[in-house]
Amino acid sequence: MPQARPAAVPADGLTTRQRRNRALLMVHTGDGKGKSTAAFGLALRAWNQGWPVGVFQFVKSAKWRIGEQSALAALDAVTVEQGGEARIEWHKMGSGWSWSRKAGTETDHAAEAAEGWAEIKRRLAAGTHRLYVLDEFTYPMSWGWVDVDDVVATLAARAQGQHVVVTGRNADPRLLDAADLVTEMRKVKHPMDAGQKGQRGIEW
Amino acid sequence: MPQARPAAVPADGLTTRQRRNRALLMVHTGDGKGKSTAAFGLALRAWNQGWPVGVFQFVKSAKWRIGEQSALAALDAVTVEQGGEARIEWHKMGSGWSWSRKAGTETDHAAEAAEGWAEIKRRLAAGTHRLYVLDEFTYPMSWGWVDVDDVVATLAARAQGQHVVVTGRNADPRLLDAADLVTEMRKVKHPMDAGQKGQRGIEW
Repeated sequence: MPQARPAAVPADGLTTRQRRNRALLMVHTGDGKGKSTAAFGLALRAWNQGWPVGVFQFVKSAKWRIGEQSALAALDAVTVEQGGEARIEWHKMGSGWSWSRKAGTETDHAAEAAEGWAEIKRRLAAGTHRLYVLDEFTYPMSWGWVDVDDVVATLAARAQGQHVVVTGRNADPRLLDAADLVTEMRKVKHPMDAGQKGQRGIEW
Repeated sequence: MPQARPAAVPADGLTTRQRRNRALLMVHTGDGKGKSTAAFGLALRAWNQGWPVGVFQFVKSAKWRIGEQSALAALDAVTVEQGGEARIEWHKMGSGWSWSRKAGTETDHAAEAAEGWAEIKRRLAAGTHRLYVLDEFTYPMSWGWVDVDDVVATLAARAQGQHVVVTGRNADPRLLDAADLVTEMRKVKHPMDAGQKGQRGIEW
């Protein structure tokens, strides 16, 4: 594949290198498959670069993403075996976030989502990770569990060097406006349309 | 995310379990990002299931996919350390396929692509892998380096239990017809449009 060239060189006062290294806000949306899978693929690249990665999974099913979670944990263990520090964190809502397991929060998903976002804000302010995977984060935005304007303003003002990828259907237009890269995963054909249910190794 | 239900139950004489376990032909196409990345995410799930995986990279640049290749190699090494057998193979064209480094093939890309496809056919007949990632394979199809009808007929007749994912732009309509799952990664917005070039950790 030939290397693509920029369509235009903007008058933003930045050198090509500065512009190239500007961290990205990425959104994977649409009704098709691959939104989260591609985000976890980015986490592979981040691991290979030695970046600290934070995954924040805004879904409730423990079954989903287990393959990716196991693989990233195994890769992180490789880093530690080689004398490095663990760099990949994986946090799930649904049974209390792993950094704060409060009893009783399991049933209040709105509060739990808000708590997840509050922690992400703290980490963005502290520059904790170099890649943030906010998996299925469009849903708590759509449902009003987190404030979209707050999300957009926080992401726009985040400290440099922090890439963020948000996945999920029906991404808010304000998020799309703020994003550097937006891909719509569009369903053209899905086996479920032909009566085939999800299967091991493919869906999880 | 609630578990989706099939839209219709087909009259194909299969039980739900049989239908569920039918291996899939998947295509990731479109002009957006994430086609290959999502395919390598599937390879993570396959690794977690202990499946033998074959990656066949129909591109010429050594830089691309290095993060995914390193990560999958590290995961395969974890399997071996745990007493298992190496199960992930990664083959690239561009400097001779790794199973057959013939001198002089570097410059004849059409012949090299055809040789790659011939090997994949042999492996499909032998049931070598449980997941085949045919990365950027739409291009040799578009360019006439491999015969599309042969590809479609071979994939349709492949032995059961072998998932195949094909990535690349402009997938041939015959391939789309034959596929069980097609996702179009559609570019909504890309940093290159704003003059930003690809960067380490994101593009490779």
